[in-house]
Amino acid sequence: MEPPANHQGEKETSRLEAFSDGVFAIAITLLVLELKVPALPSSGANSAALGKALLHLWPSYLALVTSFFTILIMWMHHHAILRNVHRTDSWLHFTNGCLLLVITFVPYPTSVLAAYLDSSAAKMAAGFYAGTFVFVAICFSLFTYGAFRPHLLSQHASQKFIETTLRNYRIGPPLYILATSAAMIDARLSLAICTGLWIFWAAVIRDQRGA
Amino acid sequence: MEPPANHQGEKETSRLEAFSDGVFAIAITLLVLELKVPALPSSGANSAALGKALLHLWPSYLALVTSFFTILIMWMHHHAILRNVHRTDSWLHFTNGCLLLVITFVPYPTSVLAAYLDSSAAKMAAGFYAGTFVFVAICFSLFTYGAFRPHLLSQHASQKFIETTLRNYRIGPPLYILATSAAMIDARLSLAICTGLWIFWAAVIRDQRGA
Amino acid sequence: MEPPANHQGEKETSRLEAFSDGVFAIAITLLVLELKVPALPSSGANSAALGKALLHLWPSYLALVTSFFTILIMWMHHHAILRNVHRTDSWLHFTNGCLLLVITFVPYPTSVLAAYLDSSAAKMAAGFYAGTFVFVAICFSLFTYGAFRPHLLSQHASQKFIETTLRNYRIGPPLYILATSAAMIDARLSLAICTGLWIFWAAVIRDQRGA
Amino acid sequence: MEPPANHQGEKETSRLEAFSDGVFAIAITLLVLELKVPALPSSGANSAALGKALLHLWPSYLALVTSFFTILIMWMHHHAILRNVHRTDSWLHFTNGCLLLVITFVPYPTSVLAAYLDSSAAKMAAGFYAGTFVFVAICFSLFTYGAFRPHLLSQHASQKFIETTLRNYRIGPPLYILATSAAMIDARLSLAICTGLWIFWAAVIRDQRGA
Repeated sequence: MEPPANHQGEKETSRLEAFSDGVFAIAITLLVLELKVPALPSSGANSAALGKALLHLWPSYLALVTSFFTILIMWMHHHAILRNVHRTDSWLHFTNGCLLLVITFVPYPTSVLAAYLDSSAAKMAAGFYAGTFVFVAICFSLFTYGAFRPHLLSQHASQKFIETTLRNYRIGPPLYILATSAAMIDARLSLAICTGLWIFWAAVIRDQRGA
Repeated sequence: MEPPANHQGEKETSRLEAFSDGVFAIAITLLVLELKVPALPSSGANSAALGKALLHLWPSYLALVTSFFTILIMWMHHHAILRNVHRTDSWLHFTNGCLLLVITFVPYPTSVLAAYLDSSAAKMAAGFYAGTFVFVAICFSLFTYGAFRPHLLSQHASQKFIETTLRNYRIGPPLYILATSAAMIDARLSLAICTGLWIFWAAVIRDQRGA
Repeated sequence: MEPPANHQGEKETSRLEAFSDGVFAIAITLLVLELKVPALPSSGANSAALGKALLHLWPSYLALVTSFFTILIMWMHHHAILRNVHRTDSWLHFTNGCLLLVITFVPYPTSVLAAYLDSSAAKMAAGFYAGTFVFVAICFSLFTYGAFRPHLLSQHASQKFIETTLRNYRIGPPLYILATSAAMIDARLSLAICTGLWIFWAAVIRDQRGA
Repeated sequence: MEPPANHQGEKETSRLEAFSDGVFAIAITLLVLELKVPALPSSGANSAALGKALLHLWPSYLALVTSFFTILIMWMHHHAILRNVHRTDSWLHFTNGCLLLVITFVPYPTSVLAAYLDSSAAKMAAGFYAGTFVFVAICFSLFTYGAFRPHLLSQHASQKFIETTLRNYRIGPPLYILATSAAMIDARLSLAICTGLWIFWAAVIRDQRGA
């Protein structure tokens, strides 16, 4: 059965994008809820103690900044991909849904990392964080393959962009598996790989935009 | 009294949709707030304990995934319905409002389910969860009947789509009442019916899209 | 100094509306965060106790539903007003900002009401809730006067709509002051007036739409 | 490598704006989550105690109002700037990302300020709050310089607007450094400077709009 407005393929993509944009924007803003106001004992609530407590939250700030830019760059990739796509189908909706699911999940491992990065459970917290991005990378690959099927592509789609994107994304899952494994050795090594990777993805999108 | 721009019926629908999209996107993203960072005793905060605590949260992950896809598929149905609608009136606004109310409510039974699925109160938690969807299904039916009145329909509306949708939605409330009753026997049976139902709704929307 | 695109007055209004829509959608969805998962003692976490605890939350459900429809109807009024407006200026931005401030505030008195409606502090909780709407009503009046200045009006603006709206809104502040005062006598009387008022506003918008 | 739809520069800007609008709208609405329902002992939960507890939260209300209008005015500036911009590039995306990061951060220092303004840690809380706006002001300057590069400007861009904006923003960072330093002397003095500054920014945008 045909939907009534199926010939308006472009409209469908813009809806999917608008909804996804909303989810990206909310997930990126919810990250701040991870930061808890330090609870000082009433008797010792002076400026020095508050300053010390705020500095002590450095793992939270680090986790916030890392997750913020990761989600921001994922949003930019999501856009760059969908600029080449004109129509939608159920598989694109499903793979986009899986991608949004893991993206809305990101604030949780961010909170876990913030809570335990400066503790003796740091390795597990970093592994849980990096491990989440293994799923993100897999979902991104599935989504990209879903989006780049010929019957969905815009007539302005760039074959070169498609090839480069598919090739770049292929290395995502193994590198995040590496970051997850690295967490078993050292939590900071794992985080360094994750940070290095979002800089890499940022560079990739920069190249793709020809800027 | 006529509003000044009432002839621009299409514009009205797009506003209703944009607002509803926002509510759907926020509700689906708020689900992650249900996940609480495990509180480990300072003395025992090692990686093994954290890993165990994170695994112990499996009912939360299950509840998150189930509610996420349920809201996502409801969003897709909401769109498919409104693609056939060109004008709005007060009854459509009211039934859409009721639908949005129960959808914004979904994160709460999801949290209750996550908290008690692995406890001896599991039956009540599952019944509360499934029971919420009885209301969702009723509101969806009311909304659909509201949307499909002749004076609101787009001239491109598909009579076949309308008939199939009304027929499919008719079985929603009784099936969710069944899922709610099943919770009194076994919590997991109730959840299995709920999960089966969102796969059913996903298949329905897939058929309706002709994909 | 003229802004570069000032002749595109319509675009400016649509931005203001899109931003306001976002704030309305988020505020209405955040209401659910007021609902807390009941904390049962591990030893007594059975289905009967959970069911009882969920029923015991009735003031929260009532507060949620009341605030949800109040915000929804405010969103509809906001739209109806701005459909008559074509241009913006600083005063419109400022009064709209004040209105959004009190609307984003609504989830807080809703939580206070939910927490204390079934306690001996019910009168103060209901008075705080109704008192918030005194400010909402004042801000709505200011916003309406700001929006209906001749140099901002659309050429399609309905003089009849403007007159009816201004007359209807004039009774808002005194009626909410009455509801606030009534809370000192009986909390439920105050809530009943608030609920009666959003039904009145819903009827008003229905008349204004000519539906 | 050129993206397929790079000639549609305007579309790119509108996406960036829509995403940013979403983040602004969510950040401004999340401020209310800072307000906590007062926890009264069950035995002493009467209206007088609740009223006193609600009044005792004045630093929270003050912090909420201050941060609300600050974010609102930042949103207006963000718009005014991007009305002059037609195309995007990686640097604009990056500086906009930094700006959004500090804006999503604002609810946190707001909560810290609300929690400690009425305590002996007030100076540090106010300094942390004002210090956040040093970063906001720096990010705004970077963003503005990024946006006003000739190859991104719209052909309707006003040279006078650009010059005035760059000149006005130049005083932002030193004035917020002053407010941060003032916190070491007196917390309220620091807050007064911050409030004075958002009134100044509001006046600036008013002038820029020619209203």
